[in-house]
Amino acid sequence: MSSHFLHDFLRPKSIAIYGANNTFGNTMGTMQLIRIITSGYKGNIFPIHLRLDNVLGYKAYKSIAEVPETPDLVIIVLPPKVVPQVFRECGEKGVKKIILISGGFREVRGDRKNTLTEEITKIANEYGIRFIGPNCFGFFNNWLYPENNSKFNMMVWGDGIERGKFSVASQSGTMSSHLWMDPEYFDLKVGKTISVGNEANIDLVDFLEYFKDDEETDVIGLYIEEIKRGQRFIELAKEITPKKPIIAVYGGGSGAGNRAIMSHTGSIGGNIKIFDAMIHETGIIKTDYVEEFIDISGILSKPTFVYPKGYRLGIITNSGGPGALIANNAERKGLVVPRFSDKLQSKLKRLLPHTASWLNPIDVTFDMNIFNFYINFPKILMKSGEVDAIIMYGAIGFHEMMPRMSEDERIAPYVELREDMKERMDELDKIFITPVIKASQKYGVPIMYVNPQNYASYWSKKIRERGGIVFKFWDRPVNCLAKICQYSEYRRNHSSF
Amino acid sequence: MSSHFLHDFLRPKSIAIYGANNTFGNTMGTMQLIRIITSGYKGNIFPIHLRLDNVLGYKAYKSIAEVPETPDLVIIVLPPKVVPQVFRECGEKGVKKIILISGGFREVRGDRKNTLTEEITKIANEYGIRFIGPNCFGFFNNWLYPENNSKFNMMVWGDGIERGKFSVASQSGTMSSHLWMDPEYFDLKVGKTISVGNEANIDLVDFLEYFKDDEETDVIGLYIEEIKRGQRFIELAKEITPKKPIIAVYGGGSGAGNRAIMSHTGSIGGNIKIFDAMIHETGIIKTDYVEEFIDISGILSKPTFVYPKGYRLGIITNSGGPGALIANNAERKGLVVPRFSDKLQSKLKRLLPHTASWLNPIDVTFDMNIFNFYINFPKILMKSGEVDAIIMYGAIGFHEMMPRMSEDERIAPYVELREDMKERMDELDKIFITPVIKASQKYGVPIMYVNPQNYASYWSKKIRERGGIVFKFWDRPVNCLAKICQYSEYRRNHSSF
Repeated sequence: MSSHFLHDFLRPKSIAIYGANNTFGNTMGTMQLIRIITSGYKGNIFPIHLRLDNVLGYKAYKSIAEVPETPDLVIIVLPPKVVPQVFRECGEKGVKKIILISGGFREVRGDRKNTLTEEITKIANEYGIRFIGPNCFGFFNNWLYPENNSKFNMMVWGDGIERGKFSVASQSGTMSSHLWMDPEYFDLKVGKTISVGNEANIDLVDFLEYFKDDEETDVIGLYIEEIKRGQRFIELAKEITPKKPIIAVYGGGSGAGNRAIMSHTGSIGGNIKIFDAMIHETGIIKTDYVEEFIDISGILSKPTFVYPKGYRLGIITNSGGPGALIANNAERKGLVVPRFSDKLQSKLKRLLPHTASWLNPIDVTFDMNIFNFYINFPKILMKSGEVDAIIMYGAIGFHEMMPRMSEDERIAPYVELREDMKERMDELDKIFITPVIKASQKYGVPIMYVNPQNYASYWSKKIRERGGIVFKFWDRPVNCLAKICQYSEYRRNHSSF
Repeated sequence: MSSHFLHDFLRPKSIAIYGANNTFGNTMGTMQLIRIITSGYKGNIFPIHLRLDNVLGYKAYKSIAEVPETPDLVIIVLPPKVVPQVFRECGEKGVKKIILISGGFREVRGDRKNTLTEEITKIANEYGIRFIGPNCFGFFNNWLYPENNSKFNMMVWGDGIERGKFSVASQSGTMSSHLWMDPEYFDLKVGKTISVGNEANIDLVDFLEYFKDDEETDVIGLYIEEIKRGQRFIELAKEITPKKPIIAVYGGGSGAGNRAIMSHTGSIGGNIKIFDAMIHETGIIKTDYVEEFIDISGILSKPTFVYPKGYRLGIITNSGGPGALIANNAERKGLVVPRFSDKLQSKLKRLLPHTASWLNPIDVTFDMNIFNFYINFPKILMKSGEVDAIIMYGAIGFHEMMPRMSEDERIAPYVELREDMKERMDELDKIFITPVIKASQKYGVPIMYVNPQNYASYWSKKIRERGGIVFKFWDRPVNCLAKICQYSEYRRNHSSF
């Protein structure tokens, strides 16, 4: 168990909340308390409200002083001008942890000097309070009490998010809470996500420090607009990346981007070149795209994933177009698509129709021997030592088609499956995917499947359940793989093993 | 109605098919005939089979000579060596149109010279036969007989694909048939797609010629590995692009890509620089990514879409992170994110909380006035003349959340909606989306919505039904918009109006 102060910070035994009421959709505080309740939080909840006797079914208190115990964590969603007073009252009560959701601190432009941040910082220091925010969303902890499967969720939509070891610290609320709204999206099993806001007291660097030795964190995601303690950030990142990957999206760089940032968190976005140089030095995986952020994080979070040992890509496809496009994109992105050795070619050739191709890409064309396609070709490539990763296009399931065709009375008599075949249909993932994932781990050659059906389609789900990585089209797996190969090289060069 | 020979080619009144049998999943011919039948083809079907008396419920004939009429179109899925003889028999029968699916013509490598293509070309010329292929998938015509809603589908999965005016000619079977497997994917309503294969007789240029004046085609998609009649292609493309956009994916370029192509269609992939120069000259929208191909085609196929008149992007968001990332990516891709004029700023400022931002991006922050967000801000920007396109992040529907919260007995009493509110919930799209799409058309400023929920979620579907463009994340709409703005400029400069 981590002894870092943030570990306890993210596991509140009881909470008080300022700014929730009984009118749905009206205030952020109400929405957040609803999230906390509906996600099954089991600790005591003490709403603080000047007029209401109860809030969302919980007894409300006029002030924190009246609360019968000292809440472990206090959440504040109030107009900024009253916050210093509330901080002081919390301090008097003995509160040590606060989430300050409210905006309107340093990020507001104008003539008047905004000293609220200084005020609350002074009060916090006086009472020994640590706080996240202001101007944040709070946090989501899927590891609250894993033993009773409880979580603390004040901001993430989608209670079905599975517990994983991907943790996010983000200077954007959206990047820490709205990436998981589509429950069908990829495999991003999440541990903890934190919206750090303006970082007046607790910053990204604190979270890096915490995640470094946190057993519940294997992969780290960051959304960065500004780094306050640059030197410490670099030191920590360098310590972390040989063991745990860090994937970062940077929101600064352009004039308009910096303008957006200035009004967002009040910080100066900084120079993209300096940022990139720093990223390069630390082994952080950088991306400009949120989709790629999710993709790469999802791949690296897979417990079955193995890091490629080089840049050589083997392509297996049942169609020439995707093969050509994968090869092109791979070479553009710095991967290598080697022509297979004569020995390997002759091995493949024996298993393929004469219209097929076996140079790399392997293009099986129409005559599809499904056992070769799914099992033999990947295994042969993995064993060959000639490729470091595999992308397979054409992992298409027949499961949705079969029943539809059986419903067509003209066709049904011909496409009907025998009962024993139907049973096997439900086991195709064990037959076709499981042994390949095992071989992938044995030989250290990752494989990515491409199935143009919906992520939630039967076969895509099955492949994912067996530990496989599935994409709908072939562009993104190539883009991800190129960045993962670079990181993998860094990891090998900086590993102490 | 188009008088081009391909118009009739794609509307067969009756068909004969070689290579289908009664064993499901065994041969391409069987799969294709199943597709034709299940997609509701109403013309006569004559399977040709040496041994079977009937195929998939249709009377089979030993040879084409025995068929009681001359089939309008013949589909051949047979080993290549018998194809010349079959071509000759078809010619004798008076057949004028053939789809030759089989591979194994020029694309096979080896010592022996493969003269099959020359043989069938000679026979075709002798009998006046035109044919698509060899080594292709055939075609899909969603406009077969629109008056009785019939289609001809020998290769596309997903019978629910709505009829549209997006037509594809592709040197890859996959790129003409497997892009529509996820029925929830975007809004790509399809007219016609053709897999042209090796183009021994009918090529991409023929299809460009056909699409140019085809009233059922407004947007053209191409997958290109090689262009046979380069000069004619350029001439045609230049005539077409001022009126109809052409979106092209190029499969050549890299060493491995060319290797894949060589074994795919047997052609030489060509030089990426020459290709790019040609693309630039013709106003074709080029992309390296299949997802972007679908995205851009989907956007341009929307009947409500209007072309941007410049490169200036207005951003509306409820979250700083996406705002910064959209702005950054936009500037990287050649769009401009202008700081709004003082006049426009003061107009926006009056409608926003003091913690918000109104410089561009507009960041409404937490205090979300949904009428301003959805209606007033887009309309103000459209009217201002200061932006040419708008991207809005945060178009998130509450429709999935509401019932879930109502199921939670602790929360239900507080989140219950009045009956009249519920009724309005089903009309939110008419209230929030319809007037904005109308304004978009009036002022000529396109708008794209970003909703991180699933494409098939209630709100995303509703926005799309109202003519809105919806993406799940904000990267791809920016990438698409940048290319669309370039094309729009070309279109303006080359339009005769």
